[in-house]
Amino acid sequence: MDSRSIVVSFVVLVFTILPAGAQVSDVVVSRYEPIARRLMETGLRNPQAYEMLERLTSEAPRRLSGSSDAAKAVELTKRMMHDLKFDNVHLELIKVPHWVRGPVERGTAIVPNGKKSPLTICALGGSIATPKGGITAEVVEVKSFEELQALGPKAKGKIIFYNRPFDASEFNTFEAYGGAVDQRSKGAVEAARVGGVAALVRSMTLALDDVPHTGMMGYVDSVAKVPAAAVSTMDANMLSEMLKKGQKVRVKLELSCETLPDVESANVVGEITGSEFPNEVIVVGGHLDCWDKGSGAHDDGAGCVQAIEALRLIKELGLKPKRTIRAVMFMNEENGLRGGKAYPVAPERQGEKHIAALESDRGGFAPRGITIAADSVVVRRVQSWRPLFEILSAGQLDPGYGGVDISPLMDRGIPGFGLHPEGHRYFDYHHSANDTIDKVNARELEMGAVVEALFCYIVAQEGL
Amino acid sequence: MDSRSIVVSFVVLVFTILPAGAQVSDVVVSRYEPIARRLMETGLRNPQAYEMLERLTSEAPRRLSGSSDAAKAVELTKRMMHDLKFDNVHLELIKVPHWVRGPVERGTAIVPNGKKSPLTICALGGSIATPKGGITAEVVEVKSFEELQALGPKAKGKIIFYNRPFDASEFNTFEAYGGAVDQRSKGAVEAARVGGVAALVRSMTLALDDVPHTGMMGYVDSVAKVPAAAVSTMDANMLSEMLKKGQKVRVKLELSCETLPDVESANVVGEITGSEFPNEVIVVGGHLDCWDKGSGAHDDGAGCVQAIEALRLIKELGLKPKRTIRAVMFMNEENGLRGGKAYPVAPERQGEKHIAALESDRGGFAPRGITIAADSVVVRRVQSWRPLFEILSAGQLDPGYGGVDISPLMDRGIPGFGLHPEGHRYFDYHHSANDTIDKVNARELEMGAVVEALFCYIVAQEGL
Repeated sequence: MDSRSIVVSFVVLVFTILPAGAQVSDVVVSRYEPIARRLMETGLRNPQAYEMLERLTSEAPRRLSGSSDAAKAVELTKRMMHDLKFDNVHLELIKVPHWVRGPVERGTAIVPNGKKSPLTICALGGSIATPKGGITAEVVEVKSFEELQALGPKAKGKIIFYNRPFDASEFNTFEAYGGAVDQRSKGAVEAARVGGVAALVRSMTLALDDVPHTGMMGYVDSVAKVPAAAVSTMDANMLSEMLKKGQKVRVKLELSCETLPDVESANVVGEITGSEFPNEVIVVGGHLDCWDKGSGAHDDGAGCVQAIEALRLIKELGLKPKRTIRAVMFMNEENGLRGGKAYPVAPERQGEKHIAALESDRGGFAPRGITIAADSVVVRRVQSWRPLFEILSAGQLDPGYGGVDISPLMDRGIPGFGLHPEGHRYFDYHHSANDTIDKVNARELEMGAVVEALFCYIVAQEGL
Repeated sequence: MDSRSIVVSFVVLVFTILPAGAQVSDVVVSRYEPIARRLMETGLRNPQAYEMLERLTSEAPRRLSGSSDAAKAVELTKRMMHDLKFDNVHLELIKVPHWVRGPVERGTAIVPNGKKSPLTICALGGSIATPKGGITAEVVEVKSFEELQALGPKAKGKIIFYNRPFDASEFNTFEAYGGAVDQRSKGAVEAARVGGVAALVRSMTLALDDVPHTGMMGYVDSVAKVPAAAVSTMDANMLSEMLKKGQKVRVKLELSCETLPDVESANVVGEITGSEFPNEVIVVGGHLDCWDKGSGAHDDGAGCVQAIEALRLIKELGLKPKRTIRAVMFMNEENGLRGGKAYPVAPERQGEKHIAALESDRGGFAPRGITIAADSVVVRRVQSWRPLFEILSAGQLDPGYGGVDISPLMDRGIPGFGLHPEGHRYFDYHHSANDTIDKVNARELEMGAVVEALFCYIVAQEGL
């Protein structure tokens, strides 16, 4: 090797050791550092996300798709964005499913001596009602569909009680949820396949509490429909203890829920139109509908007001994004995804090019970072901005899921991003009467909006 | 430059670019990675910190130094460590101050037309009582001691109302606290210096709430003692609004607090004695005393049970630390630091060498990392372990404060470390009736113990 080739190797090696694009990203970091600080200081000094969430959860608390509260939420968030002088505030109309819980939902456990214990239950979203007078049948407990199959003819005529808890040893509570939620989503179908007459599902939560956690379940055309309900974790434990004694336990289940005809509703849209590339769009959003037991403060009122607040902060700082930053309140994430599916194909999308979509739908807790659902080039690009997000104490920029509402965009190749907040408490509240504004801290909620504002603004200026 | 010197430069440069000690730390990281995962899984699957905290806060809720609950807390935590089969469980006796709140604390605002409004107040720790019948005087509001000085003779005979809020735009709530707490600690002395008759201090919190937040205040020998009380932030705002109208507002203040003779109490100590270097000690602790308004769930019951839980987890995994890991429940952090001061000079310290001291005293929230109060060599060493703490989602290993109880150790040159949890909510609860167990999440609390266990075990094996 001559000295010239040594020098060449040396130069190559040095540039290999240096992180890829170090110099470019250093420039980006120093460019946006003052903006990161100003966004944070402005948000913390004069936060408005919490106040918006208070209005949303008090004026439109039970905003399940098709409900009058959902209609109120559409009008309210449209008015909020209008009052904040966002550009191009409008509704994009869609039809949504209209499932209603009805006045009656009641569960009772009955042991052989006739003693009755009330069970704290609620219908799962999409369930059919029980016949008038309810269903009374013996209960059989299973922890998995495999266990259910193994029961064979013993399952016939029974109420199938799914009681596999979350894996508490899993740090990521969303993973723990993912490991249990098949019981809720497919429990009724699998019960019916073996001749079961109803599904009773342990609530999807890590908490030991006395409220049921609802959520979507589904049917398939080829299998009979049987009713499905969630039972609180405390009563699931009680029922399991009753069964452990070896005695026959019957449960009486009464549900009055029903699916009504579709209703007209809308995605709610507002933006800061880009000054140089108005047709290049960064979406930031959450879903406006929520389950009807609480008031959807974390799921996903938080995500909606954070999107609005992110744009407000950008405007408040007098920033003029080159590309369009658009807040979208998606309708019907919980039981249909009609809003998410409609958005990419709406007539308004003509001539638009989407650069990125960011969703907040994991609660309004203190942000830890952003998950990235994109190719490795985009991942590295975004990770090179880490020092900026570390200023906000949200430097975890790791590959991961974007969000359900933006999944139709992601399916079209648009890079998706998910606000990643502290996750331990989310499922304590999720889909239950406990998902109320008193569980939200104003500063934590606001910091999520600050993280979103910074991310959207950088992408609006730098592209992806 | 000849080719040989180019090669030498090249080698030097490469080693300069590589992080110092990269190879050594890689070995350490791979050595402890399985342990980090096992500690976390064990803690999350079978957490015991929360259950211990439930016992502590229910059996000994009002454990201010010198109180009967403080004595109960000493016995309870000693018994817990004994039952967990820790080594060398014992008390280290100290004398502590004994301030009591007394039965009466009442504040009333009186406007010129005679209309009275109750003020939600409480005595600050260490305050003298008002004379029987209370003190009634005109109120003057200030935001700083400079403003107070500028009042000149106008302050004479007045109740000085300190109303400078936390700087909400400060991300670090402990910095915001530090920017306001002089009003509480020195307010009475500065009031007396200008002839004021009492100090009424806006509660030290970012929350707008209706409970007063107490905390320590002090006197100096050369200045007359006047009583000092905290007022809730809601009533501080109300009082300020009354004064803005330009009217004279008088306040009647009644306090019955007093300082009784010192009482015998103790630090509570238990350990896993080191298998190779038993005299080399890593301390992990919190303080057992708390203010008397809540039950000290976050401040600092959390820190105490996390220390015990950290040792329990290490034992549960069957690990045998080479150096001694010692849990210390320090007594009297809130109003005297007698426990912290006594620990390094206790007779039991003979022949011991302390390697590190880790304190958790910022609440039982989700851990973000560890702050490091040590020289730059130790900082870099600990930072090289970052990948391990990132497994626990607690990778922020930055220079910062250790803890008040371990400050006497730090003053002797021992590296100090502070568990660094999510901080937005701490001062919502701090020193008030709101600091109760329902504000603590079991998983977040447990994860703090897991982080402590990992840190202590690595230091026990590797030294510092």
